[in-house]
Amino acid sequence: MNFDIEKREFLKGLSLIQSVAGRKTTLPILSHILIQCEKELLYVVGTDLETGIQEELAGNINTRGKASVSAKKLYEIVRELPEESIHIQKKENYWITLQCGKSTFNLAGLDPDEFPSLPSYQEGNFSKLPTSLLREMIEKTVFAASNEESRYHLNGVLFVRNKQGAKELLRMVATDGHRLSLIDREGETIRGIEKGIIIPKKGVLEIKKIMADRDGQEEMEIYFDQTHGFFKIGKSLMVIRLIDGEFPEYEQVIPKMNDKKLVMEKERVYACLRRVSTMASERVEGIKFSLKRNAVELSSYHQDFGDAKEEVEVVYEGPPIEIGFNARYLMEALNVMDTEQVVMELKDEGSPGIIKPLSSVEPPDQFCIIMPMRI
Amino acid sequence: MNFDIEKREFLKGLSLIQSVAGRKTTLPILSHILIQCEKELLYVVGTDLETGIQEELAGNINTRGKASVSAKKLYEIVRELPEESIHIQKKENYWITLQCGKSTFNLAGLDPDEFPSLPSYQEGNFSKLPTSLLREMIEKTVFAASNEESRYHLNGVLFVRNKQGAKELLRMVATDGHRLSLIDREGETIRGIEKGIIIPKKGVLEIKKIMADRDGQEEMEIYFDQTHGFFKIGKSLMVIRLIDGEFPEYEQVIPKMNDKKLVMEKERVYACLRRVSTMASERVEGIKFSLKRNAVELSSYHQDFGDAKEEVEVVYEGPPIEIGFNARYLMEALNVMDTEQVVMELKDEGSPGIIKPLSSVEPPDQFCIIMPMRI
Repeated sequence: MNFDIEKREFLKGLSLIQSVAGRKTTLPILSHILIQCEKELLYVVGTDLETGIQEELAGNINTRGKASVSAKKLYEIVRELPEESIHIQKKENYWITLQCGKSTFNLAGLDPDEFPSLPSYQEGNFSKLPTSLLREMIEKTVFAASNEESRYHLNGVLFVRNKQGAKELLRMVATDGHRLSLIDREGETIRGIEKGIIIPKKGVLEIKKIMADRDGQEEMEIYFDQTHGFFKIGKSLMVIRLIDGEFPEYEQVIPKMNDKKLVMEKERVYACLRRVSTMASERVEGIKFSLKRNAVELSSYHQDFGDAKEEVEVVYEGPPIEIGFNARYLMEALNVMDTEQVVMELKDEGSPGIIKPLSSVEPPDQFCIIMPMRI
Repeated sequence: MNFDIEKREFLKGLSLIQSVAGRKTTLPILSHILIQCEKELLYVVGTDLETGIQEELAGNINTRGKASVSAKKLYEIVRELPEESIHIQKKENYWITLQCGKSTFNLAGLDPDEFPSLPSYQEGNFSKLPTSLLREMIEKTVFAASNEESRYHLNGVLFVRNKQGAKELLRMVATDGHRLSLIDREGETIRGIEKGIIIPKKGVLEIKKIMADRDGQEEMEIYFDQTHGFFKIGKSLMVIRLIDGEFPEYEQVIPKMNDKKLVMEKERVYACLRRVSTMASERVEGIKFSLKRNAVELSSYHQDFGDAKEEVEVVYEGPPIEIGFNARYLMEALNVMDTEQVVMELKDEGSPGIIKPLSSVEPPDQFCIIMPMRI
């Protein structure tokens, strides 16, 4: 193996892989990256066995071959190099030599044949999808997924086909049991998601990062088999192991009888929530909504520090009602609404509330459900 | 106590105090700030008993008095308030009420008479000093002070008068036993530093922060008594308890016989150090300098990852010599040199090296000493 590559190009590829390779692991080769020169193509690959990333890089291959070296150390070195061409060459015992300007580095490696191969896929199976569509669906749901490792089947985002009459919809849903976020968007169905698959949160966040790094790629390709999701964005390929579990029957928990409807200005309520939540207890983060005609009072109480309250004008014609919510859940839900006004639908103080953008679409193409709490 | 204050003004005062108040402490009142309205003046005060900060604020006092509430919680609240006027009023049991816009907060407090008073000082004792002078002297020395709590007398910066003929000099020195940084600057002597005082590193860093926040204050006032340093910058007053210990006899360790002189381009050597140090061991961070005629080779070796080397052109006419240094110490020393070229003076591989800016001043008005290490 022997090739030349510009510092900038190499650094970009290495940086995209840092977050999957090099994590603390008992298997030393997983802290490595694989460098692969085959035919005219140069790749770097990293994997933690759950998420794999392969980057195709532009380089000048003199001799084919492959090598495996520490992902972190190689990244640290390349980051410090001048903006020049780098020459890399394989030596004995899996070592490589890296030369750039007047610097020479010898890096210890491992047998590249020990590097776990990424799951294979068939080129013809991919569907095309606007990158912005997937990004929007991810951003508007992933925050509601659970971080609790014990709730493995909730640690991800459900991605499923949803046929509504003649319309083909793509649906994403995430929930942690206390709240739920759902979004529907029109789009051709994607091979493998007919019955729904669960993409782990960690993988979803990696996709988001690659989307940001490969900004300007308007279209991406995507496909799922029984066990993995495959995502191509520009010259990046990501392979994510899907969560093997049952997503909850979320359609049953969508409230149908929430007849108390409240229209609020998003920014105003958001700022008020930030203020009043400073006095909510750190553990439960609860604040109280006290609704009266065309106004809501938000209030909180902290046993050590004191209390807070603020009134906000809203549009509300219903009877007085008091209901408690987790302030952070409310703020995170408001954060993913794009309209200036949002609608909150309530039933009573013991039933979940719905928050959605103010729009005329029925059924709504996006909403969050939040469980109430006793305050 | 009853006063009005603009959000922006209050927030600035509170933010300057956050770093001293509210640290983990067994004495609850130290996590509080004192708000003091006396005559026409409004103050906020915070202290951790080592460093105290008092800020004079512009407000409209309706009734005099004082209160003590959680520094962190008050800051969190004020940060979220709209850019409007805040009304604060004392209630029963040391509580205060804060109103702004449509928000009302009730904050629990403690008896303000329990709040430790800052050490007193006499207005006439202060000397004036350009803020930029003190800032430069701090920045060029404090990095070399020790962080090891067991070496209490090295956890600070020596500030001492140094008369050189008719010239009045101010000198700052810091050392951790492995390296030392010294700077002399012309300036009228300051009351209390004749025999030298040691300002703790933590306090020095607080002064730097206040200097940055009060940017534009060209002059500050300063004075030391037996136990404390007093610093006035704009409307801020800082009181720092001095380190009660003997600073080492640093003048004895300044090498006099370093006859091998090397002139290097600072940026070039710095970049090379960053590259080569990627392969230095994390624990000792050692790199080797191999000097030959008009060139130095920097090299490093890491037992897990491999090795690195790079040659840099320098001006050097002496005999070949090999010497090991801690790469980080070298980089931190280069960082505080303002000239494009720096001079390194060596004796032999077992003796400390000197680094200084290339200038014609003799004796030099700034230098660093670094102990060598076996590589």
